[in-house]
Amino acid sequence: MPDSAPAVQPRSEVLLSRYRAVRAFTEKIQAQLTAEDCVVQSMPEASPVKWHLAHTTWFFETFLLEPRPEFRPFAPEFRVLFNSYYNTVGDQHPRPERGILTRPTRERVLSYRHHVDEKLADLIRNEAIAEPVLEVGIQHEQQHQELMLMDLKHLFSSNPLLPAYQPYVKSAPHPGAEVAPGLQWHESPGGLVEVGHHGGEFGFDNEFPVHQEFLRPFALANRLVTNREYLSFVEEGGYEQPDLWLSAGWDAVQESGWRAPLYWAQKDGEWFEFTLGGEHPLELDVPVCHLSYYEADAFARWSGYRLPREAEWEHMARHLPVQGNFVDQGHLHPRVGTESGDHPAQMFGDVWEWTGSPYVAYPGYRVPDGALGEYNGKFMSDQWVLRGGACVTSASHTRATYRNFFKAHERWMFSGLRLARDLDGHE
Amino acid sequence: MPDSAPAVQPRSEVLLSRYRAVRAFTEKIQAQLTAEDCVVQSMPEASPVKWHLAHTTWFFETFLLEPRPEFRPFAPEFRVLFNSYYNTVGDQHPRPERGILTRPTRERVLSYRHHVDEKLADLIRNEAIAEPVLEVGIQHEQQHQELMLMDLKHLFSSNPLLPAYQPYVKSAPHPGAEVAPGLQWHESPGGLVEVGHHGGEFGFDNEFPVHQEFLRPFALANRLVTNREYLSFVEEGGYEQPDLWLSAGWDAVQESGWRAPLYWAQKDGEWFEFTLGGEHPLELDVPVCHLSYYEADAFARWSGYRLPREAEWEHMARHLPVQGNFVDQGHLHPRVGTESGDHPAQMFGDVWEWTGSPYVAYPGYRVPDGALGEYNGKFMSDQWVLRGGACVTSASHTRATYRNFFKAHERWMFSGLRLARDLDGHE
Amino acid sequence: MPDSAPAVQPRSEVLLSRYRAVRAFTEKIQAQLTAEDCVVQSMPEASPVKWHLAHTTWFFETFLLEPRPEFRPFAPEFRVLFNSYYNTVGDQHPRPERGILTRPTRERVLSYRHHVDEKLADLIRNEAIAEPVLEVGIQHEQQHQELMLMDLKHLFSSNPLLPAYQPYVKSAPHPGAEVAPGLQWHESPGGLVEVGHHGGEFGFDNEFPVHQEFLRPFALANRLVTNREYLSFVEEGGYEQPDLWLSAGWDAVQESGWRAPLYWAQKDGEWFEFTLGGEHPLELDVPVCHLSYYEADAFARWSGYRLPREAEWEHMARHLPVQGNFVDQGHLHPRVGTESGDHPAQMFGDVWEWTGSPYVAYPGYRVPDGALGEYNGKFMSDQWVLRGGACVTSASHTRATYRNFFKAHERWMFSGLRLARDLDGHE
Amino acid sequence: MPDSAPAVQPRSEVLLSRYRAVRAFTEKIQAQLTAEDCVVQSMPEASPVKWHLAHTTWFFETFLLEPRPEFRPFAPEFRVLFNSYYNTVGDQHPRPERGILTRPTRERVLSYRHHVDEKLADLIRNEAIAEPVLEVGIQHEQQHQELMLMDLKHLFSSNPLLPAYQPYVKSAPHPGAEVAPGLQWHESPGGLVEVGHHGGEFGFDNEFPVHQEFLRPFALANRLVTNREYLSFVEEGGYEQPDLWLSAGWDAVQESGWRAPLYWAQKDGEWFEFTLGGEHPLELDVPVCHLSYYEADAFARWSGYRLPREAEWEHMARHLPVQGNFVDQGHLHPRVGTESGDHPAQMFGDVWEWTGSPYVAYPGYRVPDGALGEYNGKFMSDQWVLRGGACVTSASHTRATYRNFFKAHERWMFSGLRLARDLDGHE
Repeated sequence: MPDSAPAVQPRSEVLLSRYRAVRAFTEKIQAQLTAEDCVVQSMPEASPVKWHLAHTTWFFETFLLEPRPEFRPFAPEFRVLFNSYYNTVGDQHPRPERGILTRPTRERVLSYRHHVDEKLADLIRNEAIAEPVLEVGIQHEQQHQELMLMDLKHLFSSNPLLPAYQPYVKSAPHPGAEVAPGLQWHESPGGLVEVGHHGGEFGFDNEFPVHQEFLRPFALANRLVTNREYLSFVEEGGYEQPDLWLSAGWDAVQESGWRAPLYWAQKDGEWFEFTLGGEHPLELDVPVCHLSYYEADAFARWSGYRLPREAEWEHMARHLPVQGNFVDQGHLHPRVGTESGDHPAQMFGDVWEWTGSPYVAYPGYRVPDGALGEYNGKFMSDQWVLRGGACVTSASHTRATYRNFFKAHERWMFSGLRLARDLDGHE
Repeated sequence: MPDSAPAVQPRSEVLLSRYRAVRAFTEKIQAQLTAEDCVVQSMPEASPVKWHLAHTTWFFETFLLEPRPEFRPFAPEFRVLFNSYYNTVGDQHPRPERGILTRPTRERVLSYRHHVDEKLADLIRNEAIAEPVLEVGIQHEQQHQELMLMDLKHLFSSNPLLPAYQPYVKSAPHPGAEVAPGLQWHESPGGLVEVGHHGGEFGFDNEFPVHQEFLRPFALANRLVTNREYLSFVEEGGYEQPDLWLSAGWDAVQESGWRAPLYWAQKDGEWFEFTLGGEHPLELDVPVCHLSYYEADAFARWSGYRLPREAEWEHMARHLPVQGNFVDQGHLHPRVGTESGDHPAQMFGDVWEWTGSPYVAYPGYRVPDGALGEYNGKFMSDQWVLRGGACVTSASHTRATYRNFFKAHERWMFSGLRLARDLDGHE
Repeated sequence: MPDSAPAVQPRSEVLLSRYRAVRAFTEKIQAQLTAEDCVVQSMPEASPVKWHLAHTTWFFETFLLEPRPEFRPFAPEFRVLFNSYYNTVGDQHPRPERGILTRPTRERVLSYRHHVDEKLADLIRNEAIAEPVLEVGIQHEQQHQELMLMDLKHLFSSNPLLPAYQPYVKSAPHPGAEVAPGLQWHESPGGLVEVGHHGGEFGFDNEFPVHQEFLRPFALANRLVTNREYLSFVEEGGYEQPDLWLSAGWDAVQESGWRAPLYWAQKDGEWFEFTLGGEHPLELDVPVCHLSYYEADAFARWSGYRLPREAEWEHMARHLPVQGNFVDQGHLHPRVGTESGDHPAQMFGDVWEWTGSPYVAYPGYRVPDGALGEYNGKFMSDQWVLRGGACVTSASHTRATYRNFFKAHERWMFSGLRLARDLDGHE
Repeated sequence: MPDSAPAVQPRSEVLLSRYRAVRAFTEKIQAQLTAEDCVVQSMPEASPVKWHLAHTTWFFETFLLEPRPEFRPFAPEFRVLFNSYYNTVGDQHPRPERGILTRPTRERVLSYRHHVDEKLADLIRNEAIAEPVLEVGIQHEQQHQELMLMDLKHLFSSNPLLPAYQPYVKSAPHPGAEVAPGLQWHESPGGLVEVGHHGGEFGFDNEFPVHQEFLRPFALANRLVTNREYLSFVEEGGYEQPDLWLSAGWDAVQESGWRAPLYWAQKDGEWFEFTLGGEHPLELDVPVCHLSYYEADAFARWSGYRLPREAEWEHMARHLPVQGNFVDQGHLHPRVGTESGDHPAQMFGDVWEWTGSPYVAYPGYRVPDGALGEYNGKFMSDQWVLRGGACVTSASHTRATYRNFFKAHERWMFSGLRLARDLDGHE
């Protein structure tokens, strides 16, 4: 472009470039894997990497290409094979059997991706696209990027060879920051506060509408709970004391034989942690990760504190910059925290933070019309909210109002916790 | 009593009389059953009537007699046999095996009751009792009276002979009231409201502390949802439309083959309902009963409304008298509602009303010390709050702040629903 | 009876008297139990005593009364409730739910028994009965007498109070016989031998027809394996050595956590055995009882011997008198063996002896016509033959050709073993 | 080689050539598959193709290389990863998790194969090999070739795309032989016959020793049961009539929803069969395949006949040439039978024939010493014998005395049946 007035990039170019960047990042994640790594499913909750590659493409094809009159499916049978849970769209290949799909091959799935990418690029260039749906598709793809890394970690952890996805790098963010700061508290007087997304930028339906909640005075810890702290809980018998646990949590401990976070292993007295860089001695100053809600809750009780409510967390995070250890850094493991200054540190990135808030609709929430109404609303039971994003989340995917959610017993996501406490004299 | 100055009954007499009345009512419930009826367990969640007879006695023995120096157990092995879930007390006979305890016989369990009653009476008369614990024991026994009737209903419903516990009486509360009133709405502007128990009268730990919540303008229906309304949902395909259901609810429908509320059966095209008076044609104006949370939620969505939040319900009920169709009436089945006047009707009694609120601790909640800390706190996950009491609840056992809770898929309690809606232009 | 001409009892009187004696014995078994003991089912394989009382009556009603034109059912719904597995008759109440039938009460089931007994007595007296079916009914009732005691033992063993059905008596058959004889062998040259029932006396269909089998020279032990011998196997690590076990047996050991026979328990280093007389220190000279096929097989392998084949056992037992420790003695537990003389001892009574023969049809076997064809034939897969009868079997119910059968993992019947070996130089 | 005196190939060359041919055939099977096809496990009973590639190599490495002083493992962790069930060797990677082993890659497993092949070749050439163990290893590899094709067929059948392993060819053996011959009988007078392997050529331990069995006069059908015959059974309600089934078989029908053989599907009224050539209309004259024991037994009962005993089958097959439709033909599906002449046809190849004989030890059987004792003996319970080999079996791997065995409910092996009947006047 010749030197001239500042080039205002047309909207369609911005969109296309963003679409392509996100799509490319998905393919980058799988590029260093063998086709074999991409086809296997290690548990019903996880999906094969190849399935993610196809499903994210299916999403764009189904919601943006299929409504158009000239639409011809890439392969008609993909409509069922790669539908995750959209009853409005139709039948679905059973979730626990995603791992038997050795066909279509990864190569063919990549062709599927490129075919849809070309069609999409045409539509975007021609400004013939429903932009809000495109944006949901992009955000959806980012969620699946995180799922790919979670699912792959679970798969590799199940293999006795404990393969590494990438080389391991020690977790300090920079020299001199190898030790986690001491525990401190950031206080808030509470009161009637606003919760929820104001609009403008993208937000999922479950972040709306803005509404008011009344909070009592509270404080949040300056940083995430560390492996060192959690190890004390383990070594002081936290997993043997039923009075520390919710009843359902204690049942889970007994039935599943939990004795430590997922991916911890004790060998000859020493503790190791399996990471996307393979298994290594547990780094004590790194935030603890891969906890169930029950473990996070039991640890908080043992500490004499509690989990934050989601409104408390959001109120505290509302005006902080969305910066931290995200997937963009490529570290793929939580990092030692730094001093927090005026505000709590590590609010974004590193690990998703369990809150003590069940995942339910905000007052005034409305399920969107059509198939996308199935995106979030139907999951509003029997799950808990997590906040902040993790080291496998894209920085551009999260924000203070973002509500992630998992079941109380789940542990394969990058989940940790931050402590909270009441300020009015009793905890 | 000859005419004289009003006799002020001493506190100990009041207590003793209340204790004896509640204990006697428990025995009355089982008196019309055979010993065989009392020993069997029809599912892991339910317990045999005999076990309830013993466990409620164990509660008084363990928490009031055992701490005393002169204590001698009635039978040392009962300490484990009849402990429900108090890890602080010690081991427990496994819950799913409560039904294999043909020994001790019912007769011996009744002796156990009378033995403990005598010891308790002495303590109460001598004012040597921890009154708050006694009160918990009495409330606890009332909860188990309700459980006895729930569990018995489930047991009898599982028997192809469909035996009746008592004669069946049609459900209209009085002549001329055979038809449920039309649906109307009682509005509230919401705002910052108080929720929770103010103390004074008895309340469970989970009702404390009083705190503030901010509510948007809302309305509650004037009465409970009826069988007629729910039957429309059934007949218009409510159980076949996944978009009406939470995802976990739809899974439950598929896996459990639900097609109607528990205890409904269709025979030759006609609908019947099993009651404690046996199986009878479905009475259409009676409140619907024995719904899971998922069904209540799906029905509300199908109706275009929603479930109340527990704070909304409590705010509306706060100043209403605790009157309704309780176990004291002996009807043991919900009854047709009456006109509501200035306030919603049927807020107390008939059926427990599902709310859209997960069961979690109130802000500032503290778990009580000691074994009684296990009473409520450890169940604060994966359950939902129900309000108001049912036709198998004692009138003296419930109140506006009372929080009952069950899992989303459970149906054997007397659970129904009342509709709610937002008042700010969108539902 | 004064000395006189030998009174020839008419056939109908003989039959009636036998019918009544067997029916009375059934009621005697349950007479010392409470109604509560009789209603509960402790596992799907076992049935409540009350169910046995009713089902045996149903058998006579269905197969002898129902075919008659004047037949009126005692209670029409019993046709399904108390049908065990006769698809030819029609539907069946599900087996695992036999224990929820608190109604009909035991009292009513006893009325049912007496009602059918009167009808049957009339038919027998009037010689209007199908005698072979009557005989099957009587034999069937004797089988259920044994099942009642097996099932009751399992029920009582599941109760932490470990109740006793009757007083405990030490197991030596008479003073001076407290010690089991040493292991000796009774040899047979084998060859072409006859196997199966010759007719005349009653035999079940599965004992027919007589046919020839070729046996190699073999020997059977002079007595049953004792607790002392089995305890050596336990203490020398028999349950920890996979090479001693069939693959499916080793799986069962791992999954079920078997470490000793059913009903053995080790407390403070001492071994106890639960019996119908309650729990008592293990008597070492008594035959071991309540073994699975897998355990019997592993013990035999560990001993350097093997289990007998059923043809070997029958060949050796063919001409022995059917005498031993049967239910008629009332001991209800195996007894110390005595010297064997010319023939192996304890071939009848004490415990059923596992053979190494799967339960399949004899060559030329024909399934009987009609519903009684379901009695034995359809179970001829996935089970193993046991021989000889046990201390809970009627002496008049067993014989050398009798084929009992159970699944390889089952242990609640009174099952033990006798060792066998080849005589041709290699085991 | 120049023309000269007949070259006597040295024994080591014969062995090496045989070893190499069998090993090469294994690799040929997988050569037309993607790496993705080779890693996935479609059910716990099946294994991934890659696992078979490795395990067969592990077998040679463990039993032939490891005992040698100079042994260095190719990869020490393979010792556990690729051990199937040899407790004597040590721990095993859990069978249901064989499918999560994306590493080692197929490429590395092929390197493992070639590494071991070189070592083996050296040993064979130097005549430093335990030839009987080498022979077991070769036979073992042939068994796994068959398993690879069975497991692959199951995997592909589970994929909604129904991929084909190779092109489909209609099943007639040659033009003019498209129709199965009519049912005829080949008779035998029975009597005292020899059963078992005489030694000389290779045989598995379970084929020994030769012993005598006494057979009644019997007849075997001239050919295998066809799809046409089995379809009549299906269409005439065979799967709805409990009286045709063993009790355990009827349970399996109910629980598994069987309505036809595995791999049959009815679409718009037409029947299809899934084959290694994809899904095609059912060829009615082809032998029925993929039956459980229960189905084979029910079909035989419905036909008025029965399954052969294994001694009958072996007696009839003893002097027949081992010729038929084997894997060597490459058809990989049973073929229409031809006229039988003096002897029954299709005794070898096409499908394994269920016998009515449970799989137990022959009289005088001895378990081999050492780890290879685990090869067959520990599976001698709860399985049934099949005879004759199938279209996925190597011709050089089977013989008249060969005893294959599967559980009664299993269906993914190539299993069918031949009818038998008694000759003594009844059946």
